[in-house]
Amino acid sequence: MHDVQKQYKALTNLTKTTDLGSQAIAEKLERLCSEAAKFAAEELTIEEVNSKVPGKRYGVLRRPSDGKRSRPINLDRYNALLAEDFLKSKGLADIEDLEANERSCLLYSMVMSFCAANDILKSGDKKSPGTFFEIFVGHLFSAKYDLNPMKHIQVLNLDADSKLPTDFIFDLGPEKSKIHLPIKLSTRERVVQVWAHQRVLDGVFGTERFKGVLVILAETNYQGKDNSVVEVCLPQQWAVYQMFIARMFRVYYLDVPEKYRSLSKQYPFIQVRDFADFFDEADKIVGPPEAP
Amino acid sequence: MHDVQKQYKALTNLTKTTDLGSQAIAEKLERLCSEAAKFAAEELTIEEVNSKVPGKRYGVLRRPSDGKRSRPINLDRYNALLAEDFLKSKGLADIEDLEANERSCLLYSMVMSFCAANDILKSGDKKSPGTFFEIFVGHLFSAKYDLNPMKHIQVLNLDADSKLPTDFIFDLGPEKSKIHLPIKLSTRERVVQVWAHQRVLDGVFGTERFKGVLVILAETNYQGKDNSVVEVCLPQQWAVYQMFIARMFRVYYLDVPEKYRSLSKQYPFIQVRDFADFFDEADKIVGPPEAP
Repeated sequence: MHDVQKQYKALTNLTKTTDLGSQAIAEKLERLCSEAAKFAAEELTIEEVNSKVPGKRYGVLRRPSDGKRSRPINLDRYNALLAEDFLKSKGLADIEDLEANERSCLLYSMVMSFCAANDILKSGDKKSPGTFFEIFVGHLFSAKYDLNPMKHIQVLNLDADSKLPTDFIFDLGPEKSKIHLPIKLSTRERVVQVWAHQRVLDGVFGTERFKGVLVILAETNYQGKDNSVVEVCLPQQWAVYQMFIARMFRVYYLDVPEKYRSLSKQYPFIQVRDFADFFDEADKIVGPPEAP
Repeated sequence: MHDVQKQYKALTNLTKTTDLGSQAIAEKLERLCSEAAKFAAEELTIEEVNSKVPGKRYGVLRRPSDGKRSRPINLDRYNALLAEDFLKSKGLADIEDLEANERSCLLYSMVMSFCAANDILKSGDKKSPGTFFEIFVGHLFSAKYDLNPMKHIQVLNLDADSKLPTDFIFDLGPEKSKIHLPIKLSTRERVVQVWAHQRVLDGVFGTERFKGVLVILAETNYQGKDNSVVEVCLPQQWAVYQMFIARMFRVYYLDVPEKYRSLSKQYPFIQVRDFADFFDEADKIVGPPEAP
């Protein structure tokens, strides 16, 4: 087993016994991202592909020995050496001190180093990158709010109680908004689940009790037939969900799709932003709703 | 290519140019089910497995030559020879003249013959059984209401129109309820999509304008480790969706899971029934809501 995979296993084992926001989890994440970035920088080559996304350059990582390739990577954001260097002297807790653009590149490079390394080290494994990304983002939220999330919520009925499995839920007490935090590598047609779960929380606990915050890596898709990358976006459907199912408070991307950027500029005003912005907005998310 | 697969291809090609409820589609479906039932009866053997579902016996079909096996099959409902015999002298339009129990067995045997045959003829192909089942059920609804379904619906916004892709929609005109008809081989955690789409239709067009009718084959899962079959059911989650997202009018199964039967007996009263009942209730589904 490669060192990257050993570190991944150590991380997932640790999450079973340790608080997600703890320093121990931070260290395991740093070690894992550092190993993955080192592997990517030393053993993989970057190959630019035909980007069909206006204004963005994409590539894939490739292992020369067997030709295996990774998922698409935004070349303007990805820098494995930057991630490795940063993690040598600093840690995840220091990211929020950086200015927003550097923060974006660093977060993207850390996450993509592991996802791309895993694509090559274990072809066909879709589960590990998803689990890793959930731990990575979950840790940053846990550390920021100094609070462990829940993954089940008690739904009170008159005749019978039931436990509803959820994405991460952060309960900051009666004076703050609670957070409903789904975390996805990409969404496609499955995204309606996110709005539906928000609707259930609104219905059970009252509208605006939970702020819905969706964190997504990217919506890129590699097409072998012409060695190209596209972004798969459904902005009209998102608008319909935001109007008729529930309201999501934020959608954060580590690589924001161009077609979703404009969603914040017209009704129903879905706030799609760069994940780097989270660190500046964390207090706003859990604060009371602003007066109209 | 095996005859069963040729017939499947002929069916899907015909749907591109022909109304779903037409006699031509009926004949192609009959021919396909007949070929599949013949293949199953003549070339496959039935092997009983360890059923963990109280009161139901399950098995798999197996091809002796290479040991390939099918998805689980409810042995009390499945009878390939019955399906083949029926289709020799009669057609899909005659099914509703049968009494309900015979109707159930026949519909189940036709659908399972193709799904099981395809499992063995083309391992790993999850798409064809899903497409086939959608055509099969869609045809029966189309023929019953003498109406072609839509797969897109115009969502009117004040500033911009958008087209929402949907499951089958039957629009019977202003004096009847319209039908929202999702069709699934099984549901698991993806089922929340069904309630979410119903919610969008309720929000856009008004509550009770669309009756939600979900048709599902079964919720069985084969477990290799002990050669057993279980039913994967989430009744508490269904109840939460029915209470807080939207109301589905009917859920029909070709093999009703035991744990969902009781959902109709307690709040929020989700009407889970045998698909054979559809033929007796078709008028009720599109009729006006009953006065309280």
